[in-house]
Amino acid sequence: MSRICILRIGHRPERDQRVTTHVGLCARALGASGMYLSGTDSSIKRSVEDVVERWGGHFFLEDGVSWRSCIKQWKEDGGMVVHLTMYGERMTETIDEIREGHKDLLVIVGAEKVPGEIYGLADYNVSVTTQPHSEISSLAIFLDRYTEGSGLNRDYPDARIRIEPSKLGKRTIEK
Amino acid sequence: MSRICILRIGHRPERDQRVTTHVGLCARALGASGMYLSGTDSSIKRSVEDVVERWGGHFFLEDGVSWRSCIKQWKEDGGMVVHLTMYGERMTETIDEIREGHKDLLVIVGAEKVPGEIYGLADYNVSVTTQPHSEISSLAIFLDRYTEGSGLNRDYPDARIRIEPSKLGKRTIEK
Repeated sequence: MSRICILRIGHRPERDQRVTTHVGLCARALGASGMYLSGTDSSIKRSVEDVVERWGGHFFLEDGVSWRSCIKQWKEDGGMVVHLTMYGERMTETIDEIREGHKDLLVIVGAEKVPGEIYGLADYNVSVTTQPHSEISSLAIFLDRYTEGSGLNRDYPDARIRIEPSKLGKRTIEK
Repeated sequence: MSRICILRIGHRPERDQRVTTHVGLCARALGASGMYLSGTDSSIKRSVEDVVERWGGHFFLEDGVSWRSCIKQWKEDGGMVVHLTMYGERMTETIDEIREGHKDLLVIVGAEKVPGEIYGLADYNVSVTTQPHSEISSLAIFLDRYTEGSGLNRDYPDARIRIEPSKLGKRTIEK
């Protein structure tokens, strides 16, 4: 399985804090290796690292990243860059081709305003629904489709806490 | 196709405004008919209604709803109630059974704290990944799986604005 990282751009510290945290946690839960954050936000870094410490795995969060250098480096390393935008090509028509590229994947997820240059730098501009919704739902559906469901039900051997799925109520196992 | 509505509970007006708006827009974009909001928040109602007016369709947002009455009424009308929670049964093991129920579906999406009573009232407590991530990503994946992709690429005949999918840049058609 190729490696997946997220590049979150346009993050505004006050306004986007919870949405960006959700982007990071969604990426982790669906099997991404880490998230680059264009901009600095120590509280998001803390929230995400706290989840990783308790729930396991090696998801990284690197903030203060220049998006231009990040994309450039990813491409130099032979990876593919996918920008999720409602204006892009339909996901249903591109996802198989993207998966069959078998390349490490950098998925760009913007907040409200995305520099026009991003469209040109990405290998694919991909639209999940062609409707306005949420970068979190776009990312979730894209990753679920890309990994063909293998992102779900992951096991984290080093987890300090895990959930025992249950019909009713809350069952957790802590070690 | 059965009718799908969302019940958003535990919404806190300041803190959850953007996340709840994203929940609503995600529900609309993936084919739900509307969202009941336990609590009152006129700004969310305005944001969602503004999207509906421009992008088409008949998605409703009803705020100030009592979650207990909403669930009771839904069940009396013969519908099924699914509560998305990371503590529930695995989605991958329940989704087919839920879909094959062919019932109208009320999907409960909580904010941070959910009253314990909800677990007992729901027909299914469903966990999308058994990991902490985001109610938006849970809802997105659940709806995409439930509708088997038919929620994507929807056409809204009354839309004032629509997107022309494009490899590069932004193309919209306004009428």
